[in-house]
Amino acid sequence: MNITVWNENRHEKKNPAVRDIYPEGIHGAIAQFLQEEANQVRTATLDEPEHGLTDAVLSDTNVLLWWGHTAHDEVDDGIVEKVRQRVLEGMGLIVLHSGHFSKIFKTLMGTSCDLKWREADEKERLWVVEPGHPIMDGIGEYIELEKEEMYGEHFDIPAPDEILMMSWFEGGEIFRSACTYRRGQGKIFYFRPGHETYPTYYNKEIQRVIKNAVKWAAPTRRSRPVYGNAQPLETIKGK
Amino acid sequence: MNITVWNENRHEKKNPAVRDIYPEGIHGAIAQFLQEEANQVRTATLDEPEHGLTDAVLSDTNVLLWWGHTAHDEVDDGIVEKVRQRVLEGMGLIVLHSGHFSKIFKTLMGTSCDLKWREADEKERLWVVEPGHPIMDGIGEYIELEKEEMYGEHFDIPAPDEILMMSWFEGGEIFRSACTYRRGQGKIFYFRPGHETYPTYYNKEIQRVIKNAVKWAAPTRRSRPVYGNAQPLETIKGK
Amino acid sequence: MNITVWNENRHEKKNPAVRDIYPEGIHGAIAQFLQEEANQVRTATLDEPEHGLTDAVLSDTNVLLWWGHTAHDEVDDGIVEKVRQRVLEGMGLIVLHSGHFSKIFKTLMGTSCDLKWREADEKERLWVVEPGHPIMDGIGEYIELEKEEMYGEHFDIPAPDEILMMSWFEGGEIFRSACTYRRGQGKIFYFRPGHETYPTYYNKEIQRVIKNAVKWAAPTRRSRPVYGNAQPLETIKGK
Amino acid sequence: MNITVWNENRHEKKNPAVRDIYPEGIHGAIAQFLQEEANQVRTATLDEPEHGLTDAVLSDTNVLLWWGHTAHDEVDDGIVEKVRQRVLEGMGLIVLHSGHFSKIFKTLMGTSCDLKWREADEKERLWVVEPGHPIMDGIGEYIELEKEEMYGEHFDIPAPDEILMMSWFEGGEIFRSACTYRRGQGKIFYFRPGHETYPTYYNKEIQRVIKNAVKWAAPTRRSRPVYGNAQPLETIKGK
Repeated sequence: MNITVWNENRHEKKNPAVRDIYPEGIHGAIAQFLQEEANQVRTATLDEPEHGLTDAVLSDTNVLLWWGHTAHDEVDDGIVEKVRQRVLEGMGLIVLHSGHFSKIFKTLMGTSCDLKWREADEKERLWVVEPGHPIMDGIGEYIELEKEEMYGEHFDIPAPDEILMMSWFEGGEIFRSACTYRRGQGKIFYFRPGHETYPTYYNKEIQRVIKNAVKWAAPTRRSRPVYGNAQPLETIKGK
Repeated sequence: MNITVWNENRHEKKNPAVRDIYPEGIHGAIAQFLQEEANQVRTATLDEPEHGLTDAVLSDTNVLLWWGHTAHDEVDDGIVEKVRQRVLEGMGLIVLHSGHFSKIFKTLMGTSCDLKWREADEKERLWVVEPGHPIMDGIGEYIELEKEEMYGEHFDIPAPDEILMMSWFEGGEIFRSACTYRRGQGKIFYFRPGHETYPTYYNKEIQRVIKNAVKWAAPTRRSRPVYGNAQPLETIKGK
Repeated sequence: MNITVWNENRHEKKNPAVRDIYPEGIHGAIAQFLQEEANQVRTATLDEPEHGLTDAVLSDTNVLLWWGHTAHDEVDDGIVEKVRQRVLEGMGLIVLHSGHFSKIFKTLMGTSCDLKWREADEKERLWVVEPGHPIMDGIGEYIELEKEEMYGEHFDIPAPDEILMMSWFEGGEIFRSACTYRRGQGKIFYFRPGHETYPTYYNKEIQRVIKNAVKWAAPTRRSRPVYGNAQPLETIKGK
Repeated sequence: MNITVWNENRHEKKNPAVRDIYPEGIHGAIAQFLQEEANQVRTATLDEPEHGLTDAVLSDTNVLLWWGHTAHDEVDDGIVEKVRQRVLEGMGLIVLHSGHFSKIFKTLMGTSCDLKWREADEKERLWVVEPGHPIMDGIGEYIELEKEEMYGEHFDIPAPDEILMMSWFEGGEIFRSACTYRRGQGKIFYFRPGHETYPTYYNKEIQRVIKNAVKWAAPTRRSRPVYGNAQPLETIKGK
């Protein structure tokens, strides 16, 4: 499996507190634990040429992870369209936390992807609601994070194909935190936690969910469907 | 209920065979049978200023029907975005036949919306698979159309929230022909039949499905959800 | 619309605290607010002959509401099977609170319908997650109940066709609280709140949800599908 | 992976034409191609003690396949309940063809599972509608079977979690032929083809679907959720 971890990588440059938590960037932290699973893992970031997502990289990527926050608008529309085409062709896509507002997620969902939010160092508890799903393999009844940013409903997304986890927040909100979608031949997983000022991506259970999701999102081996004008497979009487 | 029937209205102008079938345009034929249900029905067409979809018209429309085929590209992106916003606010949207390739449907779905097709005067039989759905009210086991254009799978759409009818085609294909989606607060119904060279919209059962769909797609009466930064509803301990 | 409100009606007989809250029984309280909507409303209870659900009553019922708790096992299996058949024929079914463990709900779901629970006078906040659904008509962003019994995930149900509301509980759990299903031609709505020691069914927003659900669950007007051996509709070549 | 292939094995005993096609029984034919994938494969049949499904066998089975037709009623209710419990615990279940009317499938679905049928040596073409699903790995646009029994809609099942293939039949019907469900922690796959008088289970593409389904249905490694009375995880104010 060839995996590419894409990160905006701006908070890490500008904010020492974030850099202290993620000295190799959020992409570096995620790449590290994904490498434990014998995957080929690349990283790519916003400020690289073509955001690090050249045609060669994209065509060689089986699953792409996406973290962005402050600079969604700086992502080139042409690159977004190439990523979308790759998803429709079968590339897996895992959208993390504030990636809910990325161009790629919004264009694949069709909705505003808006939500409530609050930074208040509050507790989040993610409850498993679909225990038989492979992404929940090895996860207990819930994952507890002592401090996270809050995301609250209404989350303006299409009804997910599958809802795997829902979050309880100390401040009184709930959220659909682990959601799957299929688009074209591609599988998409949205996973809520991961604010840049908390060490969430070092949490072993959060890592486990992401590792499981990468396996789940792997492309199937098949040709794309054939579209367009089609000859009949059976005799049509009127002809 | 205020209903707006939007039609490209180009085949009717250019092709005498289509004009013979739909002398008032496809929009005129649809508007006529929808008026039987005590609705306020407007029509709007591509060549009107703002395609007939001014802010005033859109804000006053509860359910919008959309038929287009040869001129999807001529629909202004700004108008498409306004329609999309109205759907997210709660306006119902009924997309007919070749509208599967309209900008508004593709942007709300996020996928290519591509499919197989063939014009061969062949038989279509639409089978009901969700008999308890209100859009199927009064419909028998199937609707048979002696001659229609074929649309075949794979249809590159997100898995529908509900699949109500599936088509059998004489030439050997099948198709998910009556599909519902929710996007934001809006309800969307895609209904396959209605090629411009056949009198499909005069079929009483096809009319019944569309009349039922209009009722189903009516907006709920509620404010839009509140998005953005949110104060806690409960005390957060760490604070 | 002919509505039948079924209630076990045992807590009301045995527990003065419950009787004080619901002097006419939970069924009486529910029947009262449903009558405001110009429906024909009957009640039926466990200790009546045939639990009040004779063939005549069932065949004349468009939507049945079900509240039970301590005496699920006393409900006759033959009556349960008759109710199930009526649901498959198209009768709407609204299952309330502890009805999650009723024979009729379990047999229609196929799963254990088990959950976590706690009686601790705690706060529940039901958040709307599907704002465009007709059952959410007129409901704000959430409904808050100062004191309710807690039900927590994992709730062992099939993935609902639609999840309309999710609950936040003061003690740290979440729950899928308003769920729809289709079974046969019938529509089913499960709605969590309504423990017998709290005045939940007097809450105007809770009443609104139940009123909306009754409308949504109304049967469609159509014959049942035809099952069994079928003659071909097209010529089969090999014959 | 430990797999158990259960077969009624009555047609094979009574009907020489079936025995000619499946000299080792339908279970034998299925077991043979599943063994190619390095699985441990057992078979079990109706006339064995406990139908071959002892507690030891069931607790050691990761995925159970089920073929039955003429003797559904002879399957012991106690065994059915044990199988159901194992599915809820996480065992995968693959229900084949006429198994749609088995006790185990009906009890897990909650509906009648009825359908239209016809034995007329007619052509079936199964179209892929969810090309990104792992069960569709390696499958082309469709699978064509020259002669099969027809199953037609309406198929009285809950709306599947995922519809992977739909069948076109020469005689004019369509059918949802490859459907997934989750129940408890278990995954269920229904796959339509496989009438006893045709060599369907020797078709390499049909075999591929079943092999893929076995992998997909494998249990996740996790404890069952905890149900029942629960202590609060957070402080409740009123207490």
